[in-house]
Amino acid sequence: MLVTILTDFGTTDYFVGAMKGALLAVCPEARVVDITHDVPAHDIEWGAFTLFAAHETFPPGTIHVAVVDPGVGSARRPILVVSGGHFFVGPDNGLFTHIYEREPSAQVFHLTNEKFFRPSQSTTFHGRDVFAPVAGALANGVAPTSLGEAITDYYQFPLPKPKRLDDGMLEASIIHIDSFGNCITNISPSDLPDAARGSWHLVVGSHQVRAVREFFAAEDGASEELFAVWGSAGFLEIAVFCGSAARVLNARRGQAVSVVSD
Amino acid sequence: MLVTILTDFGTTDYFVGAMKGALLAVCPEARVVDITHDVPAHDIEWGAFTLFAAHETFPPGTIHVAVVDPGVGSARRPILVVSGGHFFVGPDNGLFTHIYEREPSAQVFHLTNEKFFRPSQSTTFHGRDVFAPVAGALANGVAPTSLGEAITDYYQFPLPKPKRLDDGMLEASIIHIDSFGNCITNISPSDLPDAARGSWHLVVGSHQVRAVREFFAAEDGASEELFAVWGSAGFLEIAVFCGSAARVLNARRGQAVSVVSD
Amino acid sequence: MLVTILTDFGTTDYFVGAMKGALLAVCPEARVVDITHDVPAHDIEWGAFTLFAAHETFPPGTIHVAVVDPGVGSARRPILVVSGGHFFVGPDNGLFTHIYEREPSAQVFHLTNEKFFRPSQSTTFHGRDVFAPVAGALANGVAPTSLGEAITDYYQFPLPKPKRLDDGMLEASIIHIDSFGNCITNISPSDLPDAARGSWHLVVGSHQVRAVREFFAAEDGASEELFAVWGSAGFLEIAVFCGSAARVLNARRGQAVSVVSD
Repeated sequence: MLVTILTDFGTTDYFVGAMKGALLAVCPEARVVDITHDVPAHDIEWGAFTLFAAHETFPPGTIHVAVVDPGVGSARRPILVVSGGHFFVGPDNGLFTHIYEREPSAQVFHLTNEKFFRPSQSTTFHGRDVFAPVAGALANGVAPTSLGEAITDYYQFPLPKPKRLDDGMLEASIIHIDSFGNCITNISPSDLPDAARGSWHLVVGSHQVRAVREFFAAEDGASEELFAVWGSAGFLEIAVFCGSAARVLNARRGQAVSVVSD
Repeated sequence: MLVTILTDFGTTDYFVGAMKGALLAVCPEARVVDITHDVPAHDIEWGAFTLFAAHETFPPGTIHVAVVDPGVGSARRPILVVSGGHFFVGPDNGLFTHIYEREPSAQVFHLTNEKFFRPSQSTTFHGRDVFAPVAGALANGVAPTSLGEAITDYYQFPLPKPKRLDDGMLEASIIHIDSFGNCITNISPSDLPDAARGSWHLVVGSHQVRAVREFFAAEDGASEELFAVWGSAGFLEIAVFCGSAARVLNARRGQAVSVVSD
Repeated sequence: MLVTILTDFGTTDYFVGAMKGALLAVCPEARVVDITHDVPAHDIEWGAFTLFAAHETFPPGTIHVAVVDPGVGSARRPILVVSGGHFFVGPDNGLFTHIYEREPSAQVFHLTNEKFFRPSQSTTFHGRDVFAPVAGALANGVAPTSLGEAITDYYQFPLPKPKRLDDGMLEASIIHIDSFGNCITNISPSDLPDAARGSWHLVVGSHQVRAVREFFAAEDGASEELFAVWGSAGFLEIAVFCGSAARVLNARRGQAVSVVSD
């Protein structure tokens, strides 16, 4: 059984190792796959985007443990999300927002059955003491309904969708900036159904992005020009070849991006 | 068979990959789990604490390869430690100090049987040429006694224990500072048997730590106040919410911490 | 089936996780082993050296996926290299130069059979959409000849070999500088067949390296003196105990190193 792990714990301390051990103690046959442990500390939105973009390639039945959890120990609930044949275990703090967005009928369970928690339960390390052993239980075939009650009032952070204005302009925004400085917008191909390549351009603050490329490396790749490209996560991205578009644009997550007809 | 790896090699070079290959060449069925490769270079005490705190969750029978080894190639011996049903392979330089501390009757073997080393043995890379293949042999079921002679004169670095003074005050110390700046003391719950919550406070240098919290995230978590918390490694830790207690305290490992009655 | 992954993607984004998922979706039984994801961005030569030095310890039959690919999306071809019983999947940009150097008769295939690519093929993420699923196909037992046509005009970057001059001096160079600042030369033991220890010294720019040590940690290890040591990758390295030889030498990759008789 495949179990992926995504955290913001970094890799310098014992936290990730202890989580893996707690998982393998419950299900020694589980095959653990690291997605990342370098989500910027406490950045739930970064974690949510990264989990969403990474999980899609895994085969159905994969269990994903995700822990970006500034509120550990507080009232936020530990949950299990079942969506698209995948299982997601982690805190109810918005980390699964993109999953809910894709499938509003996702099943969500509040993890309350302490029988599946680690016996010496710490109040501060739910990754090791709650999420990892629950993932191990799932890997052992325990049914979601045995882990807790179904809930519907789970938390999603607001995830803007592009809005088409009367003049045909699309009002969108930057939902993620990756570690290379590429700015990922919330624009999907279906948002630009009638837009032939080159018939539109982007406006971000005082910048215009007029080039649209098929690849990150195009023939004239040496240029420092901003360009738009359909990125591998399925969204329109703004990039600079061998540079940081975020720095050029002085961009921040949430910033407005307009798609304007030429 | 589960084999964990902990090193200070970093992840930029080929060292970790070569170790994994050397292990899997001996035991292709071994399931390799990274604990960390980001122990600060040559920091045996960091490695020792991290290994100890991480290994406890793994199931019995797990083999742990640990390499933080500034003296590689010198006279320090390669060893195997058998303790608590776990196996530890690495250099005899104190890396297993916490393991010995927990179980003074741990069995220790000097790895001398070169039959289980990598044929083209380098003089500078015991991780790849000695420790990984020996771990592979263990994973294949080779008995510890086949790997070398039992020894009792293995090296432990001094590991202070809290000392109770006549006036009831506890004299303790900081044994680890994690990458978030949390200061882990050597104080266990059993060292404070009669101390009700709030009936004592900590003194570190010129600082007093009066708050004791149950979680890292408490209701008034935004405060920058120092607080004590029972950490997930089983020790009393000094922390600051969303900040570095080590920086606030100007703390260093080994620094004295006093528990004083209110 | 063992599949290693080496990239320059870093571990902060979703890229590595998505590659692992794409591989495991094709071959759920594959056992994924990280070599490194911290190759400096776009540094093909670093990736080539690291892959070469790491892969040698793995058992025959191992599949290595390597992606350091500044030209993704451009005309460079995706290839499979079969050499020494190992399989290498990645871009035709020189990343396998050391493999070709060791075995000039390596078989190379241009990956053209899109049947083995990921259906929703992105134009920008061949790691996920081409290389990982092809590695999965190989792990499933698909024959290399099913993946594409054999080619012989694959790309190698120039890899200098030491040159013996008439006066017996050897003209060599630095081919890699590792993350600790050790300078790895292209000098193999066979290049110095008649050189007894200490009968020669190295000249690098204005520096002379006269000490030759057996270990990184020798008795007088505290000294900051430059020394030469036969490194674990099989080449003569220039090092400084607990320091960066590259900084002391102000060295760069490609820099000349002369071996001069005393």
